Amino acid sequence: MALKTLVILFSFLLVSSESALAQDFCVADTSGPQNPAGFPCKSPDKVTANDFVFSGFANPGNKSALVKSSFIPAFVTQLPGLNGLGLSLARADLDAGGVFPMHSHPAATEAFVVVKGTVTAGFISSTVNKVYSKTLNAGEAFVVPPGLLHYVINTGKVPAQVFVAFSSPRPGIQLTDLAWFKNDLPSDVVRATTFLDKDEIKKLKALFGGTN
Amino acid sequence: MALKTLVILFSFLLVSSESALAQDFCVADTSGPQNPAGFPCKSPDKVTANDFVFSGFANPGNKSALVKSSFIPAFVTQLPGLNGLGLSLARADLDAGGVFPMHSHPAATEAFVVVKGTVTAGFISSTVNKVYSKTLNAGEAFVVPPGLLHYVINTGKVPAQVFVAFSSPRPGIQLTDLAWFKNDLPSDVVRATTFLDKDEIKKLKALFGGTN
Amino acid sequence: MALKTLVILFSFLLVSSESALAQDFCVADTSGPQNPAGFPCKSPDKVTANDFVFSGFANPGNKSALVKSSFIPAFVTQLPGLNGLGLSLARADLDAGGVFPMHSHPAATEAFVVVKGTVTAGFISSTVNKVYSKTLNAGEAFVVPPGLLHYVINTGKVPAQVFVAFSSPRPGIQLTDLAWFKNDLPSDVVRATTFLDKDEIKKLKALFGGTN
Amino acid sequence: MALKTLVILFSFLLVSSESALAQDFCVADTSGPQNPAGFPCKSPDKVTANDFVFSGFANPGNKSALVKSSFIPAFVTQLPGLNGLGLSLARADLDAGGVFPMHSHPAATEAFVVVKGTVTAGFISSTVNKVYSKTLNAGEAFVVPPGLLHYVINTGKVPAQVFVAFSSPRPGIQLTDLAWFKNDLPSDVVRATTFLDKDEIKKLKALFGGTN
Amino acid sequence: MALKTLVILFSFLLVSSESALAQDFCVADTSGPQNPAGFPCKSPDKVTANDFVFSGFANPGNKSALVKSSFIPAFVTQLPGLNGLGLSLARADLDAGGVFPMHSHPAATEAFVVVKGTVTAGFISSTVNKVYSKTLNAGEAFVVPPGLLHYVINTGKVPAQVFVAFSSPRPGIQLTDLAWFKNDLPSDVVRATTFLDKDEIKKLKALFGGTN
Amino acid sequence: MALKTLVILFSFLLVSSESALAQDFCVADTSGPQNPAGFPCKSPDKVTANDFVFSGFANPGNKSALVKSSFIPAFVTQLPGLNGLGLSLARADLDAGGVFPMHSHPAATEAFVVVKGTVTAGFISSTVNKVYSKTLNAGEAFVVPPGLLHYVINTGKVPAQVFVAFSSPRPGIQLTDLAWFKNDLPSDVVRATTFLDKDEIKKLKALFGGTN
Repeated sequence: MALKTLVILFSFLLVSSESALAQDFCVADTSGPQNPAGFPCKSPDKVTANDFVFSGFANPGNKSALVKSSFIPAFVTQLPGLNGLGLSLARADLDAGGVFPMHSHPAATEAFVVVKGTVTAGFISSTVNKVYSKTLNAGEAFVVPPGLLHYVINTGKVPAQVFVAFSSPRPGIQLTDLAWFKNDLPSDVVRATTFLDKDEIKKLKALFGGTN
Repeated sequence: MALKTLVILFSFLLVSSESALAQDFCVADTSGPQNPAGFPCKSPDKVTANDFVFSGFANPGNKSALVKSSFIPAFVTQLPGLNGLGLSLARADLDAGGVFPMHSHPAATEAFVVVKGTVTAGFISSTVNKVYSKTLNAGEAFVVPPGLLHYVINTGKVPAQVFVAFSSPRPGIQLTDLAWFKNDLPSDVVRATTFLDKDEIKKLKALFGGTN
Repeated sequence: MALKTLVILFSFLLVSSESALAQDFCVADTSGPQNPAGFPCKSPDKVTANDFVFSGFANPGNKSALVKSSFIPAFVTQLPGLNGLGLSLARADLDAGGVFPMHSHPAATEAFVVVKGTVTAGFISSTVNKVYSKTLNAGEAFVVPPGLLHYVINTGKVPAQVFVAFSSPRPGIQLTDLAWFKNDLPSDVVRATTFLDKDEIKKLKALFGGTN
Repeated sequence: MALKTLVILFSFLLVSSESALAQDFCVADTSGPQNPAGFPCKSPDKVTANDFVFSGFANPGNKSALVKSSFIPAFVTQLPGLNGLGLSLARADLDAGGVFPMHSHPAATEAFVVVKGTVTAGFISSTVNKVYSKTLNAGEAFVVPPGLLHYVINTGKVPAQVFVAFSSPRPGIQLTDLAWFKNDLPSDVVRATTFLDKDEIKKLKALFGGTN
Repeated sequence: MALKTLVILFSFLLVSSESALAQDFCVADTSGPQNPAGFPCKSPDKVTANDFVFSGFANPGNKSALVKSSFIPAFVTQLPGLNGLGLSLARADLDAGGVFPMHSHPAATEAFVVVKGTVTAGFISSTVNKVYSKTLNAGEAFVVPPGLLHYVINTGKVPAQVFVAFSSPRPGIQLTDLAWFKNDLPSDVVRATTFLDKDEIKKLKALFGGTN
Repeated sequence: MALKTLVILFSFLLVSSESALAQDFCVADTSGPQNPAGFPCKSPDKVTANDFVFSGFANPGNKSALVKSSFIPAFVTQLPGLNGLGLSLARADLDAGGVFPMHSHPAATEAFVVVKGTVTAGFISSTVNKVYSKTLNAGEAFVVPPGLLHYVINTGKVPAQVFVAFSSPRPGIQLTDLAWFKNDLPSDVVRATTFLDKDEIKKLKALFGGTN
């Protein structure tokens, strides 16, 4: 039997199953409405290799004077091939003395590797409020369990560069200071629920742009 | 450096990440088509605190003479903030002698707490058909594993009030009597698959509004 | 054919499948080692109805003078029938002016219903730090998305009673104040990662029993 | 470079990663305690191809005179390679007029294919108690959504053979008649929660071996 | 009280909850856009029993001369009632000497039962590249863990018929030969990443219709 | 009221709930038996910050002459804090011309970022065997959907360094060449299921250490 015939027959076999198959991926159509599972899938016809590529990690992001750190996310919005796949990436940079203030990722695990420099990272357990902290040099990695408060400080003398992975294509990031002080939550409520002094709250609301 | 400048810089840092973030919640747009994960998300701009509030638990629901019980659900349709979040609530009331007839929740766990009165609740295992039953007073809670047949009877002398939680924003409720007798399932089929007598089936079809 | 024979034959049919069946539940053997899915299952022979019952919600828990609130959990440790079932309960009470300070539940949804009194509850989104807050009377329910900072204050004039459900048999509870101030996290680290003043930190470490 | 050297080097590369790898499977050690995720894994050293094989589908099981049907499960207990893998199989046979009485599978989807004969299958929705029923010949398949009441009757003239798949390695099977009548659930409770007559209950308890 | 009144009252009770209920199923509207959880749900009003039925397993599919085997899927596209339910079916046939070449199902478990004939099936572990292989006669079943390479050969003398179940309504099927040789992947890349000879690659690209 | 009293009372409140709490993490006790959800949890008393740290990424692993690449995993075995958390990391290095041969990760998503050098990565869809390939420079990231065949080649002129994340703490790695040629799978079976020539198979079995 000629090869050509074989190909035709074999293709025929497969064609019948191909049309039945799942999409291997569900690249986010970020213009569509989200649902609890993520974004609708882009039509497979329009998907290209670029949907699986993110090119923004070459340089550090813009650092703020307050925290001397920057954060570049490659979440599903930036990297639509991640839609539904339980993973995302980020690049973080901290100048000497820079910091990622206390924050948590609701429902996502974080793990990161230090590429350059030295940082001190820590998270705090909810059960007994124990601090798990470690100073990490280039080549070391650290895991933060989901939802727990944690921080990173550049405790070295040179800029630090870190690559971060999350167990969600859409991890949230809740910075406690912004949650408490960058909105219209009444100062009395902040006081009653945080035990901070009135003046402290006033000062931090001013710093982060909160009202009331 | 002035505070104002700090705020600007810090905000700048965050803004870049904010746009990348997940929605923290996916409030149901109940006008949209459901999918296996739930409803599409309402646009975050239109979400208000009320989407997370249900106000219908103040009084018992209307009780039927047959079962002397009422049930008020706060599922995703009534409380759209539950969409995708694996949880829902309900209030149940039973007059003395009232009952929640044999039923199951396909694929959802139930747990409830008795707020007032006394009820006897029970579920039946599928493996060895064992009854796990208990009379519960105010302040006691009971767990029903997913999918198993169970019932609740007010075995006290006063009305009972119960708050219920389910491990799904859209728990199903299958009452066996309604499944068997409130539709056009032919009596012969009911008989062959339940071993009930012809007359019994006829009587219950009449009671629950079934035909055939 | 005699009924007795039928029973024997039918039982025979079922016995062969019974031995193959899943356990309908996996009551926690809390003496065994946990794993990511929960506790090992107690032997079905030793499971009784009491494994599905919790009797500790009759009265409020002990309230502390600082927060004037109490919390009684019915998590898997107290109610072993919840093991692996994605649900748990709690009772919370707040005297007038009482509060549940800022906290989050890593990875678990919370929903609660006010049984008595009036509370004001709020949570803060991570994306734009918006406050979703509502004053709730008896008969109203509120949902808190997983992992987000939230608080409850008794803003009424009488004690409030609340029943709470969580979408996990083992929800964590992270109180920010305890995470920051009830351990040996160095004050310098707290300062660098929270922007609080040195004196404030010192005062709160003293209040909550922290060192360093 | 000699092939042998290449092999050594390449193997060396892999060995370092092999020791880090997941087990590809977790064959059930059915002697160990279950947990919510299934059985502990058998040591990989002791796993053989036979752990992935079930050989009991060659002939029909023993049929009871009451239902004229038989059921042979290949669940995780019979086929330990299924542990943790979200799937199981079964063979079912029904003589002409044979039946699988009303039952549900708590939390598992069922799909089956008719290999020989003709059956009528149906399930009932929980929302509006609608019957979805179909007569199926050899070569036809049917899906039953999780947790819903359903039945199968051989409505043909010859024995029917069916292969069944479940979306769980440990699907439960709850037969309503056995749940109601094959235990010590008091007749009064059965009556109050099913609306069946006293005599009917008495008769069925006798048939299925129940007491009280 | 008259029966009719009872029915009305009981129905009233239920109606209030019915409108709150989950859909028991989410039949795929295959015209809608997929998302990571599957297809949107067809409106329940339009769902019929046929949405849960697949009628194409009566005869073997068309066999190709190359592999002498055929495959008929009943995945979500063919059997829309499977949407979101973690299960699908297929029929496979192999003439004597027929084969299902090396392939894997990304992320889905497979289990199959031999209905007629004799096949030899095997899968290969990723950890130590061990082959788990078995010759299976009619009445025997085999499990393939998710994502692992496997194959089936008809090693008997007569045509073999097999029913297959997958733990996903949309299992993928990746045939290694097609992945490597039925596209424009440059021969140099194939060579560098498979260690196959140039001529071999050329031959197989010709056989399967690849270019470059 | 004195601060000390407050602390005591507040602590009292919390202690009652602390004992009820979930573990925030489940650090792997790698000496215990695995189950489908992972390893048993190490006793929280024995957990230290080091359980969340991996220090082996400072230098490239040992490269083999055949593939000129190395791979250092930080999976749950190396980094026990990852147990149950849906995430792991790895470092990969490729000399110029080095390669990670065709392989797949059963059921895990991969995403990686190029830290140094230039690589060309590609994966192949299962549905239409389309190649999604891209040349990536330092600062670029790439996503590989779960279970699909993919490869990476250093197409630059200098060594490349890559950090990899997986959506599983125990991702499998199946290299097609090893699966086919590094075991006792009979050459006839390989031939029948891969369409490779006898001589090719013989050569590759010799290269990778296979028999038969």
